[in-house]
Amino acid sequence: MERSIDLNSDLGESFGAWRMGDDAAMLRLVSSANVACGFHAGDASTMLAICRLAAEQGVAVGAHVSYRDLAGFGRRSMEVEPGTLHDETLYQLAALSGIARVAGTRVSYVKPHGALYNRIVTDREQARAVASAVAAFDPSLPILGLAGSAIAEAAQDAGLRFVNEAFVDRGYRADGTLVPRTEPGAVLSGDAAIAERAVRLALDGRVIAADGTDIEVRVDSLCVHGDTPGAVAMAAAVRAALTDAGVRVEAWR
Amino acid sequence: MERSIDLNSDLGESFGAWRMGDDAAMLRLVSSANVACGFHAGDASTMLAICRLAAEQGVAVGAHVSYRDLAGFGRRSMEVEPGTLHDETLYQLAALSGIARVAGTRVSYVKPHGALYNRIVTDREQARAVASAVAAFDPSLPILGLAGSAIAEAAQDAGLRFVNEAFVDRGYRADGTLVPRTEPGAVLSGDAAIAERAVRLALDGRVIAADGTDIEVRVDSLCVHGDTPGAVAMAAAVRAALTDAGVRVEAWR
Amino acid sequence: MERSIDLNSDLGESFGAWRMGDDAAMLRLVSSANVACGFHAGDASTMLAICRLAAEQGVAVGAHVSYRDLAGFGRRSMEVEPGTLHDETLYQLAALSGIARVAGTRVSYVKPHGALYNRIVTDREQARAVASAVAAFDPSLPILGLAGSAIAEAAQDAGLRFVNEAFVDRGYRADGTLVPRTEPGAVLSGDAAIAERAVRLALDGRVIAADGTDIEVRVDSLCVHGDTPGAVAMAAAVRAALTDAGVRVEAWR
Amino acid sequence: MERSIDLNSDLGESFGAWRMGDDAAMLRLVSSANVACGFHAGDASTMLAICRLAAEQGVAVGAHVSYRDLAGFGRRSMEVEPGTLHDETLYQLAALSGIARVAGTRVSYVKPHGALYNRIVTDREQARAVASAVAAFDPSLPILGLAGSAIAEAAQDAGLRFVNEAFVDRGYRADGTLVPRTEPGAVLSGDAAIAERAVRLALDGRVIAADGTDIEVRVDSLCVHGDTPGAVAMAAAVRAALTDAGVRVEAWR
Repeated sequence: MERSIDLNSDLGESFGAWRMGDDAAMLRLVSSANVACGFHAGDASTMLAICRLAAEQGVAVGAHVSYRDLAGFGRRSMEVEPGTLHDETLYQLAALSGIARVAGTRVSYVKPHGALYNRIVTDREQARAVASAVAAFDPSLPILGLAGSAIAEAAQDAGLRFVNEAFVDRGYRADGTLVPRTEPGAVLSGDAAIAERAVRLALDGRVIAADGTDIEVRVDSLCVHGDTPGAVAMAAAVRAALTDAGVRVEAWR
Repeated sequence: MERSIDLNSDLGESFGAWRMGDDAAMLRLVSSANVACGFHAGDASTMLAICRLAAEQGVAVGAHVSYRDLAGFGRRSMEVEPGTLHDETLYQLAALSGIARVAGTRVSYVKPHGALYNRIVTDREQARAVASAVAAFDPSLPILGLAGSAIAEAAQDAGLRFVNEAFVDRGYRADGTLVPRTEPGAVLSGDAAIAERAVRLALDGRVIAADGTDIEVRVDSLCVHGDTPGAVAMAAAVRAALTDAGVRVEAWR
Repeated sequence: MERSIDLNSDLGESFGAWRMGDDAAMLRLVSSANVACGFHAGDASTMLAICRLAAEQGVAVGAHVSYRDLAGFGRRSMEVEPGTLHDETLYQLAALSGIARVAGTRVSYVKPHGALYNRIVTDREQARAVASAVAAFDPSLPILGLAGSAIAEAAQDAGLRFVNEAFVDRGYRADGTLVPRTEPGAVLSGDAAIAERAVRLALDGRVIAADGTDIEVRVDSLCVHGDTPGAVAMAAAVRAALTDAGVRVEAWR
Repeated sequence: MERSIDLNSDLGESFGAWRMGDDAAMLRLVSSANVACGFHAGDASTMLAICRLAAEQGVAVGAHVSYRDLAGFGRRSMEVEPGTLHDETLYQLAALSGIARVAGTRVSYVKPHGALYNRIVTDREQARAVASAVAAFDPSLPILGLAGSAIAEAAQDAGLRFVNEAFVDRGYRADGTLVPRTEPGAVLSGDAAIAERAVRLALDGRVIAADGTDIEVRVDSLCVHGDTPGAVAMAAAVRAALTDAGVRVEAWR
């Protein structure tokens, strides 16, 4: 029986005259595109264009919802009221959803972005705000995030499916959490090593932690970064290694 | 047989900490609420709140789409590319549509706002951009605007229904166009006179122009302003006069 | 010898089409206007208009610097990088400073706004970022804030004068800190009681804390709120009571 | 006697996480940097960083003022009220001016950006608004723009010096105006041809128009674009050709 794994990447992060990443190239490599909805990046034209490309190439579209912070690219944690966060999540999800439909596809999942992603690993109140907005909009939409996080629990409480994500180029600690970006070993390099790591995550759900321990990681989707200089090459290496190992790259169902 | 007329007003124009107009009071008087979608006013929470109130009170919700211009409240004409305008119209319409659904109602029509409204009276290219976005999103949605305008034609060309709007407190010229705001007689005052005018528009489709001519005006909906100091009193006077004249206030079907 | 005290208020918080507070009325009552610089409120025209009014009436102008958050009115704490906060403080201070000069006055002090104000009561890193921006721009500018706070210390370290502010309508705890807004007794009401409190703060530097203790409070300036419904009446009551008690209202030198 | 010419370029057009152009490379080639002030591009950190670099390298800093339109990069003409445009010009000029001073340099001139630049070639009202803001802020600041334009006249009327700019890579019509971007021959290519054109403009103030006519062009400064893929190479070619022809590249005084 053939194995498969989802490969997701943050795309559609251009804004107005500013370009970010090579969306067209990445769309040929991944199975799921996390599409910015205008709050940290993305504008209406960028959103429609990437949804059309994703539709053509059979790549699943996810709503990459964020704090409202264009100047900070959604990377700064904010003390947003849960009610506001609920409403802003709904707004973004609704906007992308309508655009995706016009582009001939649909939003298949929700992935919180940047500082919001990190915050709802532990902040239960904000996690519930996001989950309740998704549930109100469409209870069949899964949320993609970190295994064992507050948002995983909030999604479950809201009756939503949760998709566990692992990172091919991030260091893990022995307890399964990520090495913080402020510490050495947070971000790995070397396309070959990262590709090998991706294969082991996909096939065995295991990874070697920073202290050498071989740990188990729940993984339904692998995240490859889309906006760094070597992003396309790394994603290509990961995809090739997965294919060579007999793992098909496709969106989870 | 009972006569009826739609009464529409621009609502949901608060933003963040700033309030504008008395939405709750106006919603008890009108049959259609033109709801700001975040581009000239309105934020996610304002949009959800007004959709909920409108749903409770059986008031129809319209997408009040605008140029992207919070600082100028959408009141400045902009040389936006038609493609961009199409995409931004779609974004706003999609966002409000999803929010309205969660609030237990739906978007029933689209009314362009402010400078965009005025521009597509004559600008065919921008008019087509708006109409094509509405048609792509939902061809059953009518566009509300000025009779005989470029947007009326563009709506028809796109296979959309067009709803002709008349203004109860604006002066008309003998040719049926509005007296420009830069000229005397552009904006009328006196609740009683305005209410009487509204009744005649609703019953006979006629109004006395600035030069004294009695002219015919196509009218499916009457616009009452929502954001001026005396807005609630004027809308109340118009509604009372219509009711006294046997005209029911209700959204067109 | 005559006693005097500064009365400051947050003004110039309109934005585009949205009005907030009654700046003209408040300017007749206070001696210092904390002017929004465009990051939480205020636009170029609002800033220039209030600087002109302040110049006419001899009211001192302060730069009311904020996180970049129009949608949240600067009321949400943000994990902004200290370097970014330094630069954004500088930008706001520079913008208002040039506008004030054209209006015939000048920026006399800096008061952080909202969530930033609260955060740099304890956050030393953000406090240093603000203080270093002020020192870089003009080391003769004092910072206005809460006595005993991290920003007071950071101002001193940067060689800046610090102006201690007390609140006429906020409850104090026995240790001199404010009762948090989430607790009962945080915000006081009753213009007469508040006016009496203002006089005692101005004359004796003392206030009755929430638990009944009579405590000492360092106070160079009294803050009266400008954007609440009864703001003008309360400020008028405070000013009248101060005048009756022989305390002149004037900006500190 | 040695000839010299100013070479200016639009720089500092990054915003938040988005990069545009190679500011560091361009700063080694030009004598004047038109620095975005936050309205079409540029944020506080970008502005401070480029002012510091410009100060180090002895490159003059100009305020690249724009319509308030981040989403459109200031490229869409807007019906802004002259009063608003005056105030917004002042705000931008003040902000950059204070930042430049902290960076150890100063604003030496003002160059309107994009759609504003084009509009005030003919729009006298907006031209006067810009000129009066510059005059109010600092009457010693020149405005840089198109020879023979409405802004040239408005600058003169306001008592300001006007610096005539020519474009090395734009086609001219026989009457000295630019070939519109919608027509063939609007933008030239070929670094060698463009460099030769630059030399002739600098030495003789002449250029071959699109119809073959050899026309006279008043030129105090040559504009080289900074944000296109080959921008650095083209600017290097222009600078080398000027140097070879004995023309020193330096800011006008």
